[in-house]
Amino acid sequence: MSKSFEDLLAKVAECPIKKVAVACAQDDAVLEAVKAAKERNIADAILVGDEEKIRTIASVLKMDIKDFEIIDVKDPVEAARTAVKLVHDGKADMYMKGLIDTKSFLRSVLDKEVGLRTDKTLSHVCVFEVKGIDHLLFLSDVAFVPYPDLDTKAQIIKNTVEIAHACGIECPKVAPLAAVEVVNPKMPCTVDAEALTKMNEEGQITGCIVDGPLSLDLAIEPQAAFHKGTTDRKIVGDADVLLFPDIQAGNITYKCLVHTADCKNGNILTGTSAPVILTSRSDEFEVKVNSIALAAVVADAMNK
Amino acid sequence: MSKSFEDLLAKVAECPIKKVAVACAQDDAVLEAVKAAKERNIADAILVGDEEKIRTIASVLKMDIKDFEIIDVKDPVEAARTAVKLVHDGKADMYMKGLIDTKSFLRSVLDKEVGLRTDKTLSHVCVFEVKGIDHLLFLSDVAFVPYPDLDTKAQIIKNTVEIAHACGIECPKVAPLAAVEVVNPKMPCTVDAEALTKMNEEGQITGCIVDGPLSLDLAIEPQAAFHKGTTDRKIVGDADVLLFPDIQAGNITYKCLVHTADCKNGNILTGTSAPVILTSRSDEFEVKVNSIALAAVVADAMNK
Repeated sequence: MSKSFEDLLAKVAECPIKKVAVACAQDDAVLEAVKAAKERNIADAILVGDEEKIRTIASVLKMDIKDFEIIDVKDPVEAARTAVKLVHDGKADMYMKGLIDTKSFLRSVLDKEVGLRTDKTLSHVCVFEVKGIDHLLFLSDVAFVPYPDLDTKAQIIKNTVEIAHACGIECPKVAPLAAVEVVNPKMPCTVDAEALTKMNEEGQITGCIVDGPLSLDLAIEPQAAFHKGTTDRKIVGDADVLLFPDIQAGNITYKCLVHTADCKNGNILTGTSAPVILTSRSDEFEVKVNSIALAAVVADAMNK
Repeated sequence: MSKSFEDLLAKVAECPIKKVAVACAQDDAVLEAVKAAKERNIADAILVGDEEKIRTIASVLKMDIKDFEIIDVKDPVEAARTAVKLVHDGKADMYMKGLIDTKSFLRSVLDKEVGLRTDKTLSHVCVFEVKGIDHLLFLSDVAFVPYPDLDTKAQIIKNTVEIAHACGIECPKVAPLAAVEVVNPKMPCTVDAEALTKMNEEGQITGCIVDGPLSLDLAIEPQAAFHKGTTDRKIVGDADVLLFPDIQAGNITYKCLVHTADCKNGNILTGTSAPVILTSRSDEFEVKVNSIALAAVVADAMNK
């Protein structure tokens, strides 16, 4: 059971080495992350993109890339199709965004012929290790699904629980968050939270324990549950998965953690037939490496 | 200009001493906070409530309360009316909740005869000092207004800006937050954010600079603004006021700060004719004391 990114990396070391196909690898930050992932035995990579630019960047960065396979495709959209097809065809295990706009990249992910589309909803999972919390937190959705309805929330939970399972958390505790811990008809997300809890009790959402609505303190702080007298609930400050009511709440909280807490994080897109790494330019180097490690663990679980 | 709670306390020390009227003071946590506020010369207090219970608690806590005026009113609703009337009549400067349910307490705040009602919208302001951020952050609304519409958001900004002014921030920068920093018609809060920015430019919201929509990183982290190329905006990681799209986003972020960041905070209810302190039982002792200090600074500004 991974309780930290160190645990996650130990888990990666036990798996056969995975391969990431990079779409438009002519990006210094992505190249550095992929190189570090290779050096740390987290993952190998196939670099698809403008070979000349890739070699120029490597040369400027004094980076040795001779161990990487490079596929020269100058057009970004074509490069993405080529890279995603490698994953689709099983020649690579996960798919990563390089210097290409998000829309075009996602179009390649969803391509019916060569993409990674499944019948599941696509959602984003961000995994956090936060100082003071003794286990990993799985946040969703903080970046991809704007205003999930009940069905979509159920699907987001399923996607996120799969990622938690891959990380060795056998029965993750899922907290559908709200401002309050009781159902309030004037707050639709609390009604959804109760419905999700019921769906879990009735076996429609499995492999996890859902208990909501919960305020964030009751979800992550055992002392708060004690103070507020909610210690008889299924989640007593020990939630693994934090389900957000919408992308505004999710994204602001995510950035609050990144910019004010002592923490590490990594994130992937899920609901696809292979993990997709969609870090942004503003993500730090370690976030990109952590995301590749997370994707490798998930890819390994998917292959089993 | 207060950049920390230490600055705020220094500001309080310069003001004539203020008096807080406590509704149902028979609460150990509230009594401890009021006692500390008195000892630190932050504020004096009038304790309204069940005198016998107040004295018993003081005796158990070995707390000397002989310097406090006590008004014996056993019935909680009557005690609240008595306490709020003291503020209404100018015999006290701010109003604080003790051992009484929030609904009854708020009813006393809004009482047409003896309460503190104005024509403004009531809103909650939480002031944070966060390690790594060199100025105070004013968050609203994280606890009171569930789903503010555009008008209510404008009113919340006005209320919050008044509090920032009271703390010596002459022209606070206000960031209407969202998941993104550009207007997206599918995300109504980004449309509101742009409208608020416009209302500020056109002089409908004054005494501050409004710039939204902004994601949290661009609002509080100058480096993020640099990385994302938004350094030409009015807010470049230097927001003072964070306006949340709704109570879910606000409350979850607020609790994220409290439970994962190295921070201090205090909060008050505003839009009233005098500051109202509505801390909850789960708030730590220092939060209650900080809230009294904040209320004292605001009361002083209101009296000028």
